[in-house]
Amino acid sequence: MNQNSSRQNILIGIPLYKNFDALDVVGPHQTFFMQDPQLTTLLMGPAKCDPVESYEHLRILPDWSFDSCPQLDVLFVPGGVRFDDTLCDETYIGFLKRQAAGAKLITSVCTGALLLAAAGLLDGYKATIHWGYKSVLKLFPNVIVADGFPRFVIDANRITGGGISSGLDEAMAIVSILVGNDAAKRGQLIMQYAPQPIFNDGDPSTAEPSILYEVSTDLRGSVESLSRKVEQVLSGTCPKPKGKGAGK
Amino acid sequence: MNQNSSRQNILIGIPLYKNFDALDVVGPHQTFFMQDPQLTTLLMGPAKCDPVESYEHLRILPDWSFDSCPQLDVLFVPGGVRFDDTLCDETYIGFLKRQAAGAKLITSVCTGALLLAAAGLLDGYKATIHWGYKSVLKLFPNVIVADGFPRFVIDANRITGGGISSGLDEAMAIVSILVGNDAAKRGQLIMQYAPQPIFNDGDPSTAEPSILYEVSTDLRGSVESLSRKVEQVLSGTCPKPKGKGAGK
Repeated sequence: MNQNSSRQNILIGIPLYKNFDALDVVGPHQTFFMQDPQLTTLLMGPAKCDPVESYEHLRILPDWSFDSCPQLDVLFVPGGVRFDDTLCDETYIGFLKRQAAGAKLITSVCTGALLLAAAGLLDGYKATIHWGYKSVLKLFPNVIVADGFPRFVIDANRITGGGISSGLDEAMAIVSILVGNDAAKRGQLIMQYAPQPIFNDGDPSTAEPSILYEVSTDLRGSVESLSRKVEQVLSGTCPKPKGKGAGK
Repeated sequence: MNQNSSRQNILIGIPLYKNFDALDVVGPHQTFFMQDPQLTTLLMGPAKCDPVESYEHLRILPDWSFDSCPQLDVLFVPGGVRFDDTLCDETYIGFLKRQAAGAKLITSVCTGALLLAAAGLLDGYKATIHWGYKSVLKLFPNVIVADGFPRFVIDANRITGGGISSGLDEAMAIVSILVGNDAAKRGQLIMQYAPQPIFNDGDPSTAEPSILYEVSTDLRGSVESLSRKVEQVLSGTCPKPKGKGAGK
């Protein structure tokens, strides 16, 4: 049935960290999984047997440790909330740099773009991020931040998504690139992905002004905190890891 | 800011089982979490310390065991794949019956409707399910299966969703009922839920005929297998659990 069924298996890796956003991981994971066995998606974390906790307190077990993970074909970096320290985490950022050197596609969703940027992997590329954090991504002088609120942006082999739920649209586009349009359509039908949100407040271009004001106000603290952390990354003043096992 | 901020905390429970669909759980979980602290969403499984594995091989740790779980305000039953035995699992179905007796809302997404129906909790109610499994839900003589492919159906205090990704739209509707429209809109904006699928094959009403044919063919085996299991449920001929700890 599938015109690409002779292709070899493609390995997609989603590296987890404390306070990742669960839907950033599971939306794309589910979308990729629908292409099993052509796409294999695995999660990695600091240690294989230790669950990693999302910001929403979901505890998910990784399939691999950062150390044991083989070369990935696709690196997919999820966003998170209150994950500032990960921007300075040499283990995590080092993993991204190491994998990116051999990966065919380097991708992120939501605030995961800040982690790619901290690893220098968006320098010279056009990229997007959650609508509320565009100002933070703009602090990286060599990243070209896309106008507006696109669901995702493709620039050469970099693909970056907007906020949280954008990962579903982005992952479908990645499937289409890797396995073909018909495969992406079959996945869409199996997932019954015919979204009909009951309201029309999904990004600042359509949100009611009062809703946008309230949410922007709520996000202000995390935007400021992440901005300070990006300044540390850019000036090479990240705090040194303390003691044994730090950063692991 | 929130007109309902004086409301007390509402407890939502998502009971997991082997081979649940990960996005059925995490889409709604993320949507509900955006209303923290008004909504608290917790996962339950056979044992608190044992991860439950999704059909996609995600291993998630539950917050509670079925035995220790307090009375829920909202019961949310996810769908799954190759989960036929759960329809006859006295521990799981017993948990649904016990919780439903005191819950304010009794809800499901995707094939989770079959579990609610097996527990007798959809008798006399209108309901929906993943588009590919409508024929299986129709085997329950007292369930009124909705026409077409709605994202979700509300009938009194029963809310049932369509396939997998429908859970996002359904959860937003549940938030709107529990916490108010503005809360649901704020959650939508934070999650940047302004979906734009790159194709238009999300349900049988729009899918290309060749795509619909291929996916329907792929689903045939699981539809037949689930239908046989439903016949066992309806005729009271579920196999008896074997040996120590069965059904646990």
